[in-house]
Amino acid sequence: MAREMKAAGRPRDPKTAENIKSTTLRLMREQGYAAVSIASIISESGVAKQTIYNRWKTKADLVLDAIFEETERYASAPDHDFNKSCREQLYQFLIEVFEHLERDSRIICALIASAQEDKLFQKSFRERFVNPREKIVEDILRRAHSLGQISTERDIPTLVAFIHGAFWYPLLNGIQPDRKLAQNIVAEIFRH
Amino acid sequence: MAREMKAAGRPRDPKTAENIKSTTLRLMREQGYAAVSIASIISESGVAKQTIYNRWKTKADLVLDAIFEETERYASAPDHDFNKSCREQLYQFLIEVFEHLERDSRIICALIASAQEDKLFQKSFRERFVNPREKIVEDILRRAHSLGQISTERDIPTLVAFIHGAFWYPLLNGIQPDRKLAQNIVAEIFRH
Repeated sequence: MAREMKAAGRPRDPKTAENIKSTTLRLMREQGYAAVSIASIISESGVAKQTIYNRWKTKADLVLDAIFEETERYASAPDHDFNKSCREQLYQFLIEVFEHLERDSRIICALIASAQEDKLFQKSFRERFVNPREKIVEDILRRAHSLGQISTERDIPTLVAFIHGAFWYPLLNGIQPDRKLAQNIVAEIFRH
Repeated sequence: MAREMKAAGRPRDPKTAENIKSTTLRLMREQGYAAVSIASIISESGVAKQTIYNRWKTKADLVLDAIFEETERYASAPDHDFNKSCREQLYQFLIEVFEHLERDSRIICALIASAQEDKLFQKSFRERFVNPREKIVEDILRRAHSLGQISTERDIPTLVAFIHGAFWYPLLNGIQPDRKLAQNIVAEIFRH
């Protein structure tokens, strides 16, 4: 019964959400996170204020959603191409993350900043953005463990923190991670 | 002549600055970074608004100055006790940093967040806070290199990014770095 009533309600238009998200991403890229307000997103996308607040609690939530699909495009789980060594897979993953950061580092740094001021947002940022990328690296390293490509004595959670930390740290200090950093990370992780 | 004129001006009272900084630190610890305004610091410390703005451009600059001395107390360069191995020195340094973070992580995360929104502040945060601590770790690792405690093939800047990143990363995701993390970091850096 409850389900029927829900089904009878006005359906959410997925195109509207796509429009809002792409407008948000465009404005953020043009003007930066701080300069863009919900009001300017409303005015640019031509939707009603309530349409936005029905879906997203805060600007940070909306931006997270908008950036999320981009992140998936750049830094999704690698194909399990077993011809590729784990070292190559990790390198490929890092290069894709860094390409994404080259385009959207200002937005991502602003989201990390928002997460410091809002614990609820920190939780959703961690669950939707951080943890899935942590898992990708962890899976590559576990496979490397099982294939003997890294020593079983190595502690995987520490290596995962090294790998992500090694680009979060320069990024948040205003330094863009580059190809050389990706090479140095994999060399250090996979050295014998 | 210019110097004489300057010397004749009203001297800055160092006690006033100490009072403002300790009030700032106390308010930040009690209420958190976002909740404390320059107005509340003025009201609590009983100084004139202009006294504060003569010294500090923004709240972030004042907080950086206030936290700076604390940081020096916890995480300064290690004594060059040559009886201590580099591994022990690094462990000791990390434990002190983590103790400081246990007390002031909210303030430090808020400063890192401010650095994302204000490039000038990011520069001074990096110069005063980040770089000196990077240098401490770098010096320990260079000594380890020269003493053969780590292989000369290892790339020191990458290891420095691993070490700092390994606690920035959990910290900014709401996870307090602990003793176990310090042990895992040194074990990984100094493994043969």
